[in-house]
Amino acid sequence: MVGSSVVTLDNIPIPEIRVLLDKAQYIDSHRKEVANTCTGRVLATLFYEPSTRTRLSFETAMLRLGGKVIGFAGAQLSSATKGETIHDTVKVVSQYADLIAMRHPKEGAALVAAHSSDVPVINAGDGGHMHPTQTLADLSTIQARFGRVTDLTVGLCGDLTFGRTVHSLIETLCRFGNIRFVLISPDELKTPQYVLDRIDASPTCSYVEAKDLSAVIGDLDVLYMTRVQQERFFNEDDYLRLRDTYILDTAKMRLAKPKMAVLHPLPRVNEIAKEVDDDPRAAYFEQVRRGMLMRMALESSVLGDELPGYETSKEVLA
Amino acid sequence: MVGSSVVTLDNIPIPEIRVLLDKAQYIDSHRKEVANTCTGRVLATLFYEPSTRTRLSFETAMLRLGGKVIGFAGAQLSSATKGETIHDTVKVVSQYADLIAMRHPKEGAALVAAHSSDVPVINAGDGGHMHPTQTLADLSTIQARFGRVTDLTVGLCGDLTFGRTVHSLIETLCRFGNIRFVLISPDELKTPQYVLDRIDASPTCSYVEAKDLSAVIGDLDVLYMTRVQQERFFNEDDYLRLRDTYILDTAKMRLAKPKMAVLHPLPRVNEIAKEVDDDPRAAYFEQVRRGMLMRMALESSVLGDELPGYETSKEVLA
Amino acid sequence: MVGSSVVTLDNIPIPEIRVLLDKAQYIDSHRKEVANTCTGRVLATLFYEPSTRTRLSFETAMLRLGGKVIGFAGAQLSSATKGETIHDTVKVVSQYADLIAMRHPKEGAALVAAHSSDVPVINAGDGGHMHPTQTLADLSTIQARFGRVTDLTVGLCGDLTFGRTVHSLIETLCRFGNIRFVLISPDELKTPQYVLDRIDASPTCSYVEAKDLSAVIGDLDVLYMTRVQQERFFNEDDYLRLRDTYILDTAKMRLAKPKMAVLHPLPRVNEIAKEVDDDPRAAYFEQVRRGMLMRMALESSVLGDELPGYETSKEVLA
Repeated sequence: MVGSSVVTLDNIPIPEIRVLLDKAQYIDSHRKEVANTCTGRVLATLFYEPSTRTRLSFETAMLRLGGKVIGFAGAQLSSATKGETIHDTVKVVSQYADLIAMRHPKEGAALVAAHSSDVPVINAGDGGHMHPTQTLADLSTIQARFGRVTDLTVGLCGDLTFGRTVHSLIETLCRFGNIRFVLISPDELKTPQYVLDRIDASPTCSYVEAKDLSAVIGDLDVLYMTRVQQERFFNEDDYLRLRDTYILDTAKMRLAKPKMAVLHPLPRVNEIAKEVDDDPRAAYFEQVRRGMLMRMALESSVLGDELPGYETSKEVLA
Repeated sequence: MVGSSVVTLDNIPIPEIRVLLDKAQYIDSHRKEVANTCTGRVLATLFYEPSTRTRLSFETAMLRLGGKVIGFAGAQLSSATKGETIHDTVKVVSQYADLIAMRHPKEGAALVAAHSSDVPVINAGDGGHMHPTQTLADLSTIQARFGRVTDLTVGLCGDLTFGRTVHSLIETLCRFGNIRFVLISPDELKTPQYVLDRIDASPTCSYVEAKDLSAVIGDLDVLYMTRVQQERFFNEDDYLRLRDTYILDTAKMRLAKPKMAVLHPLPRVNEIAKEVDDDPRAAYFEQVRRGMLMRMALESSVLGDELPGYETSKEVLA
Repeated sequence: MVGSSVVTLDNIPIPEIRVLLDKAQYIDSHRKEVANTCTGRVLATLFYEPSTRTRLSFETAMLRLGGKVIGFAGAQLSSATKGETIHDTVKVVSQYADLIAMRHPKEGAALVAAHSSDVPVINAGDGGHMHPTQTLADLSTIQARFGRVTDLTVGLCGDLTFGRTVHSLIETLCRFGNIRFVLISPDELKTPQYVLDRIDASPTCSYVEAKDLSAVIGDLDVLYMTRVQQERFFNEDDYLRLRDTYILDTAKMRLAKPKMAVLHPLPRVNEIAKEVDDDPRAAYFEQVRRGMLMRMALESSVLGDELPGYETSKEVLA
């Protein structure tokens, strides 16, 4: 993947995703060894809409690899840049930087940027479309908790209609294979048919749909929570009636397996009670950290900068 | 103080504040030696309200120690982050950074952050409440000018009712002891009773109150100027009548001691005439520089990163 | 120029500008050698109005020299800083940084800053007034394409009345000498008389005025395109009638010399068709890169930081 843009995970072969997962693990236990991997490199973060969590993750990743960061976020944009085409802005910035991470409210913006740029572009989210590094963070957290991303029962709970992170995770897990999905949502927010078809097309994967989190939580290895937004409902009564069903609290956690992992793409509103944070099964802040590690793995891989000691460590294992 | 958050100066023992003052002095004369003290460290500046001066001071401090900086300021904040609790944002950022400096318009926000964070939090101002590094800048400037922060006559002039920097400085100087305060303000902006009580409770400290800067300036070692805001007055006539009494100009400087030091937390409006800037007794821009040095001392101390040569230099002195 | 502010190019002697052009060329072919030239330095970018392209160029330049960057852009400014005088803000920031790059909407702001600052200030644009590093980028691109910035026919096309970059480039090229200017604009946007007088006062320079780009493009070595803004015209009919005359497309490029260089200060709207980008004569994205290299040359020169190997490389050539 050296020199390539990453607009979506869908065209990255599974073996390469496995390497990224390996590298993130290696980086985590070799912070000092990798601290100069990207010396002399400059990352540009072009955030046409602010996304503090994602921007800081990309930036910290590059800084902890020894690289440097330039960029803009939201209101720092000049009016001139606002009027300029994405093509021209990206073309200009690729004269300065070795790598671009771009966030844009419009679907397809990352693909345009990748075509315009003289340097690799990593999609940091383009509208409701793609957000590949979020899925990498999810996979890495599952890998860290279970030592694998297959042979698992994965529950996805909440808004399964509009949640792009959920669809992207299902797609990628289907490519790894051997996943039993439990799709937990109210009728108003069920998984779209094309996503169900995707699971059906995967010979080693299957799904069941459910409405009641408490009834199925005991079966799950992974519980991926998402936010149920009030504006998705026709009336407030429906929202209030359903909301509590999809709030994870310590009472529901008592019904879960002792090693279940709770993930959430954050930010949360109230769909995970704060009391759950202290439960060792809560993995959503670890997920933030794993996201940064995966971005370190991705940034260095795309730049072609080798992690010192990484190749040797693999030979020893092999 | 390794690993501890700094929400207020009030629970930092005086000997530790003395060490910070020593370290700032050492840093100033050993810029090159300390330039890699915090290599590999990442500071996050979370400025929920912009405060350019303070943010740049924290950031430069970390950069001049060899560390790196991520963060946001004001309008860079995403709407998601705006809706998120301080707890969750700080918890997330503490997955990226080794140290957080937070500015927030709400009183008590820094304490919440300190409890939520996995890494130390330094309060960079929370509403009208606390701003410990401003007081450290003040102390460091007094120390640099007089070789001590005790046995001094310290005048505080202007708005003594609402000025949090003034109250914090009085509190800290009372802990050091042996200070004679001269509290110079119009009736509308007198020092609150609880602050006067604090001075009275300090056996080696005392105060007098005054209305006329010119009448008392000759007694002062330190003159701490603050801004008199028009909106504090009931009517414009009172404001205009009083304002000039509290403007420091070269005429008033002629009445002052040859070694008096003029401090001001900045920004100033017109309470110190620009003509005073060239007077060697004007210490308010030095105060800015000392603030950065104190933040270098504080950041490295909280991170547990030793300043190369500092311990040895103390042994030689001892 | 060590320790000096750069408010305008007009008082930098031509031999020093030649050195900057040489250094930029050297930097381009010695990226690794110069990567630690400004270690320990801090640049502050004070952008009172956002100008993403220019800010990122200044910042990348310092980062690629091994220095560090602090700063603000537009909406990151605190209200306090907004109310503060430029003098005080610059005085404060010069306590933190070794070098300041300032962008300000008001003419003359950079000069005020240069007088206030304890460290050198580089003008990154003050209103419609001066923008010296843009002109350096222009010169560097011409130098790179032709090996010289004299003995050339230079066409300037579009808005020649209000374009400050055009006026600044003419002024500087007149100082180098031996330029034949072709000034291509509609009657509404002709070159001001004082600029024509400046050319006339230069014994080795001359000009012709033209209305039709196609009629003169075949004579040009350099074509400097600028934007024709609709709001400059009295009525929309005039604008629409004239606009196309000043749009550069592949049809017009067919009439040009095989080595002509097309420059543009960017951002463009539609005055250069995107189809021209792939023509090797299109130099406007190279111009962006050259701008960064010139800022590296300028920043290191003003700081007095020598480029490793540069002096030796000149001796070998001599």
